[in-house]
Amino acid sequence: MKLNQRGLLVVISGPSGVGKGTVRRALFNMPNHDLVYSVSMTTRPVREGEIEGVDYYFVDKETFLRRIQENKFLEWAEFVGHYYGTPRDKVDEQLDLGKEVVLEIEVEGALQVRKQMKEAVFIFLVPPGKLALYDRLKNRGTESMNMINKRMRKAEGEFLLAHKYDYIVVNDEVNNAADRIMAIIRAEHARTERTIHNYIKMIGE
Amino acid sequence: MKLNQRGLLVVISGPSGVGKGTVRRALFNMPNHDLVYSVSMTTRPVREGEIEGVDYYFVDKETFLRRIQENKFLEWAEFVGHYYGTPRDKVDEQLDLGKEVVLEIEVEGALQVRKQMKEAVFIFLVPPGKLALYDRLKNRGTESMNMINKRMRKAEGEFLLAHKYDYIVVNDEVNNAADRIMAIIRAEHARTERTIHNYIKMIGE
Repeated sequence: MKLNQRGLLVVISGPSGVGKGTVRRALFNMPNHDLVYSVSMTTRPVREGEIEGVDYYFVDKETFLRRIQENKFLEWAEFVGHYYGTPRDKVDEQLDLGKEVVLEIEVEGALQVRKQMKEAVFIFLVPPGKLALYDRLKNRGTESMNMINKRMRKAEGEFLLAHKYDYIVVNDEVNNAADRIMAIIRAEHARTERTIHNYIKMIGE
Repeated sequence: MKLNQRGLLVVISGPSGVGKGTVRRALFNMPNHDLVYSVSMTTRPVREGEIEGVDYYFVDKETFLRRIQENKFLEWAEFVGHYYGTPRDKVDEQLDLGKEVVLEIEVEGALQVRKQMKEAVFIFLVPPGKLALYDRLKNRGTESMNMINKRMRKAEGEFLLAHKYDYIVVNDEVNNAADRIMAIIRAEHARTERTIHNYIKMIGE
């Protein structure tokens, strides 16, 4: 019996190259979960095979800018001429259905969400050491040394933002990290500030 | 990889009759845990078969009272002429070894521990409704209606103290409750305030 019926917004972030996407996929591969992805809204053109509402919500620039004005994004950013954002109403809909909405985003976006939605759960994914991150970036094999060094410098700055998160999870092994995140979700549902309201209703009956 | 190496003091409490002992036993029956019991100190005489340091630490009244003065208990109480308490040094020893020390105590004792040890994890175990608690007390079959009513009145008062705890866990089914507590322990180890110190050391290396 869950005292807190509403889903959680689970923000998974961390320094560039830590393996956020891999951990997020491992999380969704676990059995018996109520996780859903947060679908982003974008102004970039639809690509072949992409489905509205599944891959993205596609809107024109005017609509996107109006939504920014109306504070309808939990976070947004511009990237090579296109806008990307997390629509607040879509997230709320899923939370109301009891789904845990997973948002896997860069540190900057996560800090925007922090300001918009205090009750979300913020998880900072970290490598088991700086060297491990460097190795991971090198082993991707897709980037020049110059690019790797640039990413490492970016990560250095992001490392320092860990204290702004609720949890720090080490990505030493992808399934361990996913297990820990699942434990965090279960535990957060039982936190007093999320349960006390329904608890009081329950004992009043 | 655990960033927080120190064990947690896990205080399991809740209204009279909720089934704290049963849940605690289910918890210890789970695989792969690092849980240990907190062994109490007492002035009551040793009973046949009881082992010093396993069942209790047995001391005389003078020693116990001196230890109260020296603030060496996380909580203590007098019960039918004998003293019982949780020795702080023994708990600390286990925490330093990385063990999770489980303290299953009455609400009053838990609130004493709260004052002594801010970093402990406080879990309030509740029945899935008042009626469930009443049924459980009746079904024990060992107590008179008078005693059952007395216990229910005590529980009524204790129900109201839930907000003083970090987590509220419903004991709808004993293994569910134990699972939730295990998730809470895992999650708490990852909380930023417990991990940031070692995290900063790690990224400095």
